[in-house]
Amino acid sequence: MERSACLLFQCTDKIGIIAELVGFFKDHKVSISRFEEFTDQQYFFARLEWQGDHPWELIQDFDEAFQPIADQFVEASHRAYFFDQPQRLGLFASKEPHALIEAINKTEAGDYPNTEICFLVSNSPSIEKYAIRHSIPFYFIKTFKDPAKHEGAQLEVIRRYRPDVIGLARYMKVLSADFIASAQCPIVNIHHSFLPSFIGAKPYELAYQRGVKLIGATSHYVIPALDQGPIIEQGVIRVEPGDSVDHMKKIGRDVEKQVFAKALEKVLQHKTITYENKTIVFN
Amino acid sequence: MERSACLLFQCTDKIGIIAELVGFFKDHKVSISRFEEFTDQQYFFARLEWQGDHPWELIQDFDEAFQPIADQFVEASHRAYFFDQPQRLGLFASKEPHALIEAINKTEAGDYPNTEICFLVSNSPSIEKYAIRHSIPFYFIKTFKDPAKHEGAQLEVIRRYRPDVIGLARYMKVLSADFIASAQCPIVNIHHSFLPSFIGAKPYELAYQRGVKLIGATSHYVIPALDQGPIIEQGVIRVEPGDSVDHMKKIGRDVEKQVFAKALEKVLQHKTITYENKTIVFN
Amino acid sequence: MERSACLLFQCTDKIGIIAELVGFFKDHKVSISRFEEFTDQQYFFARLEWQGDHPWELIQDFDEAFQPIADQFVEASHRAYFFDQPQRLGLFASKEPHALIEAINKTEAGDYPNTEICFLVSNSPSIEKYAIRHSIPFYFIKTFKDPAKHEGAQLEVIRRYRPDVIGLARYMKVLSADFIASAQCPIVNIHHSFLPSFIGAKPYELAYQRGVKLIGATSHYVIPALDQGPIIEQGVIRVEPGDSVDHMKKIGRDVEKQVFAKALEKVLQHKTITYENKTIVFN
Amino acid sequence: MERSACLLFQCTDKIGIIAELVGFFKDHKVSISRFEEFTDQQYFFARLEWQGDHPWELIQDFDEAFQPIADQFVEASHRAYFFDQPQRLGLFASKEPHALIEAINKTEAGDYPNTEICFLVSNSPSIEKYAIRHSIPFYFIKTFKDPAKHEGAQLEVIRRYRPDVIGLARYMKVLSADFIASAQCPIVNIHHSFLPSFIGAKPYELAYQRGVKLIGATSHYVIPALDQGPIIEQGVIRVEPGDSVDHMKKIGRDVEKQVFAKALEKVLQHKTITYENKTIVFN
Repeated sequence: MERSACLLFQCTDKIGIIAELVGFFKDHKVSISRFEEFTDQQYFFARLEWQGDHPWELIQDFDEAFQPIADQFVEASHRAYFFDQPQRLGLFASKEPHALIEAINKTEAGDYPNTEICFLVSNSPSIEKYAIRHSIPFYFIKTFKDPAKHEGAQLEVIRRYRPDVIGLARYMKVLSADFIASAQCPIVNIHHSFLPSFIGAKPYELAYQRGVKLIGATSHYVIPALDQGPIIEQGVIRVEPGDSVDHMKKIGRDVEKQVFAKALEKVLQHKTITYENKTIVFN
Repeated sequence: MERSACLLFQCTDKIGIIAELVGFFKDHKVSISRFEEFTDQQYFFARLEWQGDHPWELIQDFDEAFQPIADQFVEASHRAYFFDQPQRLGLFASKEPHALIEAINKTEAGDYPNTEICFLVSNSPSIEKYAIRHSIPFYFIKTFKDPAKHEGAQLEVIRRYRPDVIGLARYMKVLSADFIASAQCPIVNIHHSFLPSFIGAKPYELAYQRGVKLIGATSHYVIPALDQGPIIEQGVIRVEPGDSVDHMKKIGRDVEKQVFAKALEKVLQHKTITYENKTIVFN
Repeated sequence: MERSACLLFQCTDKIGIIAELVGFFKDHKVSISRFEEFTDQQYFFARLEWQGDHPWELIQDFDEAFQPIADQFVEASHRAYFFDQPQRLGLFASKEPHALIEAINKTEAGDYPNTEICFLVSNSPSIEKYAIRHSIPFYFIKTFKDPAKHEGAQLEVIRRYRPDVIGLARYMKVLSADFIASAQCPIVNIHHSFLPSFIGAKPYELAYQRGVKLIGATSHYVIPALDQGPIIEQGVIRVEPGDSVDHMKKIGRDVEKQVFAKALEKVLQHKTITYENKTIVFN
Repeated sequence: MERSACLLFQCTDKIGIIAELVGFFKDHKVSISRFEEFTDQQYFFARLEWQGDHPWELIQDFDEAFQPIADQFVEASHRAYFFDQPQRLGLFASKEPHALIEAINKTEAGDYPNTEICFLVSNSPSIEKYAIRHSIPFYFIKTFKDPAKHEGAQLEVIRRYRPDVIGLARYMKVLSADFIASAQCPIVNIHHSFLPSFIGAKPYELAYQRGVKLIGATSHYVIPALDQGPIIEQGVIRVEPGDSVDHMKKIGRDVEKQVFAKALEKVLQHKTITYENKTIVFN
């Protein structure tokens, strides 16, 4: 069977990295089908795709072969992905379904590579119908008084399904540092403002009060600091004179769902690298 | 000679305003050629244009005739403009000329109604050449140690030319509340970020550090609080992976000049109303 | 019960229309809550909304009262809508579900005023599942050899449900002039190109061949001439170097669904007037 | 002195090209500072930048060294540029100055690498003032009855200055195949429509008649077939209801100048490759 795969690589920039990376694949008689690299100040980032036979049965085999290359560079790290590995996406949502619906439909349309949604968790029972429609295992976890208990119940679901990526599709609860660490996979959030403007609650209300002429949405990796994680994707839409907060919310929903779906796509295509609380997103 | 004119009107919203406004012009046998209105919560805003003969020699005549209408409404205020009145635009710039050049070229192209640039003030001698090219009176005011003295010198120029609007075309000095009050005309600034993100100095550096995926520019009326005035226009441009701060500054210049030129156009067309530190901008 | 309603009015432009329109409502003690007007060369267009009590039980009552006003103007026509009247949207789709899904979800989210989807017709059995999920009456009408027979079967569905608007959600069959006339309601199509570029079949293939840097989608009213009807809404998205036709189709789907959903919204909000094969779309 | 340079390379796609290209530079102890590649169906395209010492005195030296690499691939072609080589840009304009002004200002701001404007040709005497302001050699060539004579006079200017690139900044005369061949350099045009819509004269009038909701501008390489050359860059702007042809022209000017300036930048940065009447534009 023809295989395809990719490598994400980063290190401190230095003369000769590209030649070394490309040389590694040539030495293993593997042909690069796509090569992208960026430099940001002292850092170098690359993403390589290859297709066809390759000598590595498992990711670990690749890692072992590649490690001597990585060792030549300072602060080097890498991750390889074989595209025939299925990916599991876990979704969290609260009351508003628009970002969730978009992510489900994109998955169903095959827009995300080799991806299935493994569960849907919500603190709102109104979300169950979307799970039923698309035959996704659903867990209603009502809001406990004790947040640790709430997170514990969520972690049980995560441990059971071991998702590769978690998407917070307008999930309106703040996650603790412990929870984020315990999830053991990247968590992608959609925030309904153009960050860093209007962090936290009620961003449309704040945007309305400030009288901005464009409102936006931001998808980012979740870190313990609220709405402060590395930004993956952002989008904006124009506000018209007289637009109420409710109208902003309505037109904002379209931006939110597009930005969230795009960010998930980039993550699931293995096209993001994080560094210094920022991301490089490959094309 | 055929005359054209416009009225900007605002008041607390109430049933019957539109009929009253339209009725006033009908009673004076003046035909409305353009009518726009918006409501924002409890406020009502309208802009009316009319063309052809009208019974008012001076703005004061109009004001006198219209006052009884305004008096029927709560918190009502209005301004009328006759389009045959020439408008004077004063410009301030520091080192970077791009916003200035755009404003000058738009004025020269006739994109702003009946407008001439009456002076150009700069704290950088490198700006003089743009004044010379376009025959604009130029004042180099070097940065005094005493800000009050600096502002005093600027106010002298303002008092001499009495501009209708002042444009800060990337003018990098903070203006005092006294100066703003003494200028006695609206002051339009271009800030090189998507406000309220990255207020104050070095916004591109801050945008770079935060890793945003879109950078922007904001044109706003100047008030004593820095970068906090009513926003007139905003724009954004996408950042590519690996874009340096310098590259952001370069692509940002295009957004800045477009946003600044658009804001000046709206102001000079009498298409803005401010309220609660926000603006209504008519189409 | 509080009622709200709107009037769409158009006529040959002339002095005094605004006063006449506004005066009519004042005379009937009805307060205008929203007024928009545009002029395009010799034509005048207005849309008025009102709220609260009004003296007209039925649309016909309004029409009767308003007719004397309309009669004062040349080529005048008008339509009034009471917002408490439910609206019925009929949908046609072929194989691709993305535009259909968006329209269904927008309807379900309440983004379209007082609207229900009354039927879904498809020439592809794969579309049935979307009808089942959302409990929409579904009609699979397989492609007959005789187009008249095919259209006949479709017209039976239309006659049974009498939709107020028909949406062609990527419906890939050309409709005859007879069919369009017999449907007796506006038909809104989404075409997968930036019209007038790439009319007819395979627009992405043509866009690819021409090497355009932006691809687009166009939603328009259907007339007998293929892809030539009055345009309601258009959108574009940037093509990256090396993008294949398949990739264009993928990113194009997002634009198509957004443009189609926006056009349907404008139509269902009674915010479009057609004239000279063009539309005025109110804000 | 540190040198920097780039290579544009294209050939029929095949396994191993990237390794071969990168290997060539490694063998010459030259470090690649930027590498971009794209594949479009059967074609492969790459752009490499390098910095620092390199063993090639002249472009011809590079070409000689590189030829054996190129010879390994089918339909291969390449061009190398040393960035310390100054570039000469010749400009043509008719009456409308906006695209011209933008190109001049971008050049003056240093946005184009190592570029000077070597001449400005116009068939309108009103354009001379822009040449004077910026000390650019100006040639007024009035429209001869005999187009060959007109083109002959233009070619004399071209032969005298030997520009590297010619920019047609809203130059409203059709150029013959002979002229294009004789110019012996790429010619970049800005067309005031979103091609392939509205080819030829009066595109805004045609856009108005068709009732499009977005108007655009297209910058392309000039070939004998009018407005049919490889597209380099496109942009669009939204039309509001009631916008007249004149208003479209006004807002269109901003898009035209931006698109033209961007296209010139890409060309002068050696970031375009043409093939099959299309372009690959590198980031």
